Amino acid sequence: MRSETIPAKSGRAWRVAAGRSLRVVDVDGGQTGDLFAVAADDPADGQSNGRTFDYGGTLRLSTGSVLYSRRSRPLLRIAEDEVGTHDFLYAPCSQQMYEIEYAATGPRPNCFDNLVGALAAFGVPASTVTTAFNVFMNVGIAPDGGLTVLAPASAVAGRGTTFVAERDLFVAVTSCPASNCNGGRAQRLVVELL
Amino acid sequence: MRSETIPAKSGRAWRVAAGRSLRVVDVDGGQTGDLFAVAADDPADGQSNGRTFDYGGTLRLSTGSVLYSRRSRPLLRIAEDEVGTHDFLYAPCSQQMYEIEYAATGPRPNCFDNLVGALAAFGVPASTVTTAFNVFMNVGIAPDGGLTVLAPASAVAGRGTTFVAERDLFVAVTSCPASNCNGGRAQRLVVELL
Repeated sequence: MRSETIPAKSGRAWRVAAGRSLRVVDVDGGQTGDLFAVAADDPADGQSNGRTFDYGGTLRLSTGSVLYSRRSRPLLRIAEDEVGTHDFLYAPCSQQMYEIEYAATGPRPNCFDNLVGALAAFGVPASTVTTAFNVFMNVGIAPDGGLTVLAPASAVAGRGTTFVAERDLFVAVTSCPASNCNGGRAQRLVVELL
Repeated sequence: MRSETIPAKSGRAWRVAAGRSLRVVDVDGGQTGDLFAVAADDPADGQSNGRTFDYGGTLRLSTGSVLYSRRSRPLLRIAEDEVGTHDFLYAPCSQQMYEIEYAATGPRPNCFDNLVGALAAFGVPASTVTTAFNVFMNVGIAPDGGLTVLAPASAVAGRGTTFVAERDLFVAVTSCPASNCNGGRAQRLVVELL
């Protein structure tokens, strides 16, 4: 087992062979991250929330759920989930999002650039990076469709979620800088490659 | 005003100038379609459900809602909506989806290929085409996140939804072949370019 720290507001990526597992751990508690998987044999075949909703029939993914690719191939399966609350609706935070929603006037670290940067080392183009799987992100969905970002349910430090690779993959994970998703602060995450 | 028919199971695309409108009409009633808009100045900057959820804060889009691009630019605004029920969660139906969900053994007309084909004429690459705005598609969302495809709410023939271009766009519209979204049959749609 190899344990890798994702410092606050940054991202990393790895090649993960079919059958191997990756566990994302909220070591400090209350921190969210963005996870994006791409099929190693096709850098354009990244994960797709729409395809995942097609085949899973639910917005709420947890143990047993499979993340599908744009080409409808299984990428990752959630094998174990000590938190149980994630989001697959919101786009990764981006420079433009910080300008629009936080009135940012200068460059801000953001999950989109961190995902794109980490995956570029494996030849994955930016066009592949769409909506990430927002690990530990807690979004309320009202009966009228209204969305609310809530504090992460991973408040107990050290809890994590384990994903198994259904094929050879490149997987990027970020530690999200957006304060409103993380109870007002940004912390590290740990990824265990099992 | 120019009125264009989208025959059943097909798709078309147009250049739509900033400020112009496009009305999708369910002329026969009970038919859904996929709409995909791309900024004319950047063929990689297509619509994004995640960005639209970021800024709109709801899964239910109707009059007044804005469809945003991957780069967080407003593409289309819903100016008038006689139906009120659409979906922005499910990926466009595709050849692989018909193989997985309908056990198709040969080629099937599908919205993904129809969107890609129609937009290719404007230089838009397939990698830009992600989740379409599924006009008139009626999806139930249970409190636990479970999704159910229901019969379209556009049962009254002749009702439509009007979109205004917030910038110069390429816009593709399909008439969806998937029988379970359209009450068991596939019909034409009409697009009025206003």
